[in-house]
Amino acid sequence: MDHVDLNPSPIVGALVTVGDEILSGHIANSNAHHIATELFVHGFRLTRMVTVGDQETAISRALLDLIGETHFLICTGGLGPTEDDRTASAAATALERPLTRNAAYEQILRTYLAQREMPWSPPLEHMILLPEGAEKLGNVAAAGFFVEHWNTPCYFLPGVPAEVRMFMEQYVLPDLDRRFPERPLYRKRILRVQGLTESHIQERLQSLAPAELGVELGYLPQTAENWVTLFTAAETEDVADQRLQRAEEEVRWRLGADAISGRDGETLESVVGQLLRERSWKLAVAESCTGGMLAARITAVAGASDYLTCGFVTYSNDAKVALLGVSQQDLATHGAVSHEVARAMAEGARLRVDAQVALAVTGIAGPSGGTPTKPVGTVFVACATASRTIVLQHRFSGDRHHVQEESAQAALVLLWKELLG
Amino acid sequence: MDHVDLNPSPIVGALVTVGDEILSGHIANSNAHHIATELFVHGFRLTRMVTVGDQETAISRALLDLIGETHFLICTGGLGPTEDDRTASAAATALERPLTRNAAYEQILRTYLAQREMPWSPPLEHMILLPEGAEKLGNVAAAGFFVEHWNTPCYFLPGVPAEVRMFMEQYVLPDLDRRFPERPLYRKRILRVQGLTESHIQERLQSLAPAELGVELGYLPQTAENWVTLFTAAETEDVADQRLQRAEEEVRWRLGADAISGRDGETLESVVGQLLRERSWKLAVAESCTGGMLAARITAVAGASDYLTCGFVTYSNDAKVALLGVSQQDLATHGAVSHEVARAMAEGARLRVDAQVALAVTGIAGPSGGTPTKPVGTVFVACATASRTIVLQHRFSGDRHHVQEESAQAALVLLWKELLG
Repeated sequence: MDHVDLNPSPIVGALVTVGDEILSGHIANSNAHHIATELFVHGFRLTRMVTVGDQETAISRALLDLIGETHFLICTGGLGPTEDDRTASAAATALERPLTRNAAYEQILRTYLAQREMPWSPPLEHMILLPEGAEKLGNVAAAGFFVEHWNTPCYFLPGVPAEVRMFMEQYVLPDLDRRFPERPLYRKRILRVQGLTESHIQERLQSLAPAELGVELGYLPQTAENWVTLFTAAETEDVADQRLQRAEEEVRWRLGADAISGRDGETLESVVGQLLRERSWKLAVAESCTGGMLAARITAVAGASDYLTCGFVTYSNDAKVALLGVSQQDLATHGAVSHEVARAMAEGARLRVDAQVALAVTGIAGPSGGTPTKPVGTVFVACATASRTIVLQHRFSGDRHHVQEESAQAALVLLWKELLG
Repeated sequence: MDHVDLNPSPIVGALVTVGDEILSGHIANSNAHHIATELFVHGFRLTRMVTVGDQETAISRALLDLIGETHFLICTGGLGPTEDDRTASAAATALERPLTRNAAYEQILRTYLAQREMPWSPPLEHMILLPEGAEKLGNVAAAGFFVEHWNTPCYFLPGVPAEVRMFMEQYVLPDLDRRFPERPLYRKRILRVQGLTESHIQERLQSLAPAELGVELGYLPQTAENWVTLFTAAETEDVADQRLQRAEEEVRWRLGADAISGRDGETLESVVGQLLRERSWKLAVAESCTGGMLAARITAVAGASDYLTCGFVTYSNDAKVALLGVSQQDLATHGAVSHEVARAMAEGARLRVDAQVALAVTGIAGPSGGTPTKPVGTVFVACATASRTIVLQHRFSGDRHHVQEESAQAALVLLWKELLG
């Protein structure tokens, strides 16, 4: 009987994020999410994330609390030329190393400026003061340094997301990989479930024994779909794959053949795109309440031009008539948000551009525009092919953005089921 | 001379988030962002955010570390019916109170189930075990409790974002407000800057003396615009407003009249919408590489149907010809990504639907499709009115999604400047 096996021991790290703007809710901590994801897929675990403000004492205390607790430490933010960038001096205090001019970094910056014929400026004096013994990370102008302290590698990165990504990929991950070659292999698999509520999923998966399959099982409701997650730690790729594969089969069997639209990064739009490509079908899209969001999701997939012929954002009734051939009578009798108009939009879009299949959405996203019989959240989605048109009515709740997201998802689910046939 | 005045002293709090799925990068910690924002606008400051995994020892240690450090404590996640929900028992350990059946919570759940004719289930036994002396937060089925410990109010909330929002609004914020009526008033203002790089902005604002204006000044690069932030703490709304107003005027004067598109929640799309509405103009949109994203941004604004007449997502050349009247010759001679085709798309869209103004985007979002003369990231945006058509060429870097975002932003900036003009 396989069990989740965490031997060899996990290599664990801690993350410190510096920034008043995160504590005040000004911005979300997107760096933390990126760093956590990257570490995980490379076989490292974070055990603690701490966010503190821009005060030197708060930063140095966070560093002191965490150093020695984990195999490695990453700190982001507070490196830069301005006065409120205090991470380097906080690190100097916490690690008991004086701040000194870093000659290597100074050289990099001077070369960078010379190439651009720019002068040295006083704020750069602040930027090149690093804790004694610190090594500049990379031969780049962006701040970022490394210190090994009490045998713990400590990586200090700036807060700009693009720079964090660059430093993680080019320096932190390769360096961690070199220092800790022996570590478990973590693998997770996300199964994207359509059309079942979380409690339905849990009910159907009750009889599954994840530990016997060597995996951990999780549930994660997303905006308009539910995720079942499978996680395993193993010593080889093969063992991990086998466990995840077997667990996935068990989940698929219990949830039903058409419940899982894809796994991991296979979004509904990428799966639908693949199905269209296989059939050499062209798709047309006609949107009212989603206002372009449906087309934008479809074209977020590279290569969508292979199958998306065009999209119509027919927000006004006039546009529905002029561009899609919806009849004035249907609009007058049934209203723009109706079974009939959704059907006419899909069929009209399909014929106008000679596509094999067309998708249409019309609804009331709110916050105003609802009526007693058609409250905000009432949405019709339609899918037209040469042989038939299917129209489904939904009633979504939540704010405007949420209704738009649910509507786009419902349209894609309808297309997906139609293409599955 | 006014200075930032933090009297009365700020009321500060700490936030603990529980969840392996955040540490593994599985999901982003959106609750932290929401809670931080809400606390800030209500006059509270967070000084520390900590995220730990689902292990009882990790949770109780985080609670122990923080309790007594701040005026209040909020903890989210790890409350629920499943075995991996361990926050209640970790709190019991940290606060040295035994876990006991919470009669009030049990009663709420039993009533909830009875109304739905659902049976009591064993996992609920786990859910109603709370630290001794805990009070159930609210008369709702969702988990969430309150303990006062060492005079520190501690709020324990579940991890589901919608439930966190509800508990914050209905219980946590009103309760904090009642406990700490004397607190500074925090106000911040975001000025959204278009067309200037961060270093340009810093250079132009160098002569500003924020402390003398009673504000703190910050810079925050966003995806396609830069934010200048002004922050103040004051005792009255009037003083705060005056300081922010004066600082805003100083910033506007230094950055130039047409540099700031809006403040706070005034997005470029909402500002453009307002300008269109004032003129009673209708807008048409024609998109190629942004694939619906531009229309989706415009229609994210409630009431966009007042001015957006329609959008065309003309991904294929055929669609550009058939729907917008772009000439085959322009496509053949100059290519779909060209000055000429961008112009023809905007002019075609405007005439097809009888709009006063039309916006068009065509470009190479990548990852493939680039050529030596037109590399990935080459984008043309065009704006056509009855009197003239302006076409601008851009070269963006980054991945497909980033190029699409920059392109949509560039189109909106072009429209904004044209409407200001």
